[in-house]
Amino acid sequence: MASLKVIPAPLDVPVAPPVRRPDPLLRELLGETLRSARQRQGRTLKEVATEAGVSITYLSEVERGHKEASSEVVGAVTRALGGSLVDLLTDMTVRVVPPLDTVAGGAEGLHAVA
Amino acid sequence: MASLKVIPAPLDVPVAPPVRRPDPLLRELLGETLRSARQRQGRTLKEVATEAGVSITYLSEVERGHKEASSEVVGAVTRALGGSLVDLLTDMTVRVVPPLDTVAGGAEGLHAVA
Repeated sequence: MASLKVIPAPLDVPVAPPVRRPDPLLRELLGETLRSARQRQGRTLKEVATEAGVSITYLSEVERGHKEASSEVVGAVTRALGGSLVDLLTDMTVRVVPPLDTVAGGAEGLHAVA
Repeated sequence: MASLKVIPAPLDVPVAPPVRRPDPLLRELLGETLRSARQRQGRTLKEVATEAGVSITYLSEVERGHKEASSEVVGAVTRALGGSLVDLLTDMTVRVVPPLDTVAGGAEGLHAVA
C-alpha cells in the first residue's frame, strides 16, 4: 500500500487575489429573488400570476430575468407573495452581497465622492 | 399674563393606530435614490448622464420616477455614481424602511407562507 505523503505548499506561491463577481443585472436579480420566494412557499407560477393579475408566461419571463417588469408588476407580484417592497429589497440584497472572503477592499457605496 | 395649564390626556382616549404608508413604486424609489446620491456628490445631471452614456433628459425622467430605467441603465448610472448594485439596494432599502414607531406588527417578509 502506497503511503500518503503530505506535500506542503511552497511559501513563495502567491495567494490568488480575491475574486469579485461582476454585478448581475437588476432584472436577473429581481427574477431569481421572486422565483426563489415563490418556490419556498411551494406555490405555482399559475397561482402567483393569477393573484398578481399577470399572465403565467409574463411572470415566467420575469422570473428568468428575460423581461423588465414594470414597477406596477413588481409591486403586484411582491404583494401576491405576501411581502412588501422592503422585504423584496432585503431579499435581493442578501442574494447579491458577496461572501466575506471574496470581497476585495471595503465597499465604497453611493455616498462616496467619485 | 395667562398661565399655562397642562391638561393631561384622558386615559380612555384610544391611541391612534400606527400608520404604515403604502409602498412607493420601485421606479419612484429608484429615482429618488439615484438623485439623492448624485446631489450628495455635488454632481450635475449632465456629468452623470454623460458618464453613464444616457441622455440628460432620460436620466432626469428616471430620477423623477417617470420612466422605468432598463437594468442596463440602472447599472450604468450606479457605476457612474461610483457604486455597486449592493450599494444601490442598500440605499433604496434605507429610504423605504418605515420609522420604527410607525411599524404595525412585525415584517412578514417574502419568506412567509401566504
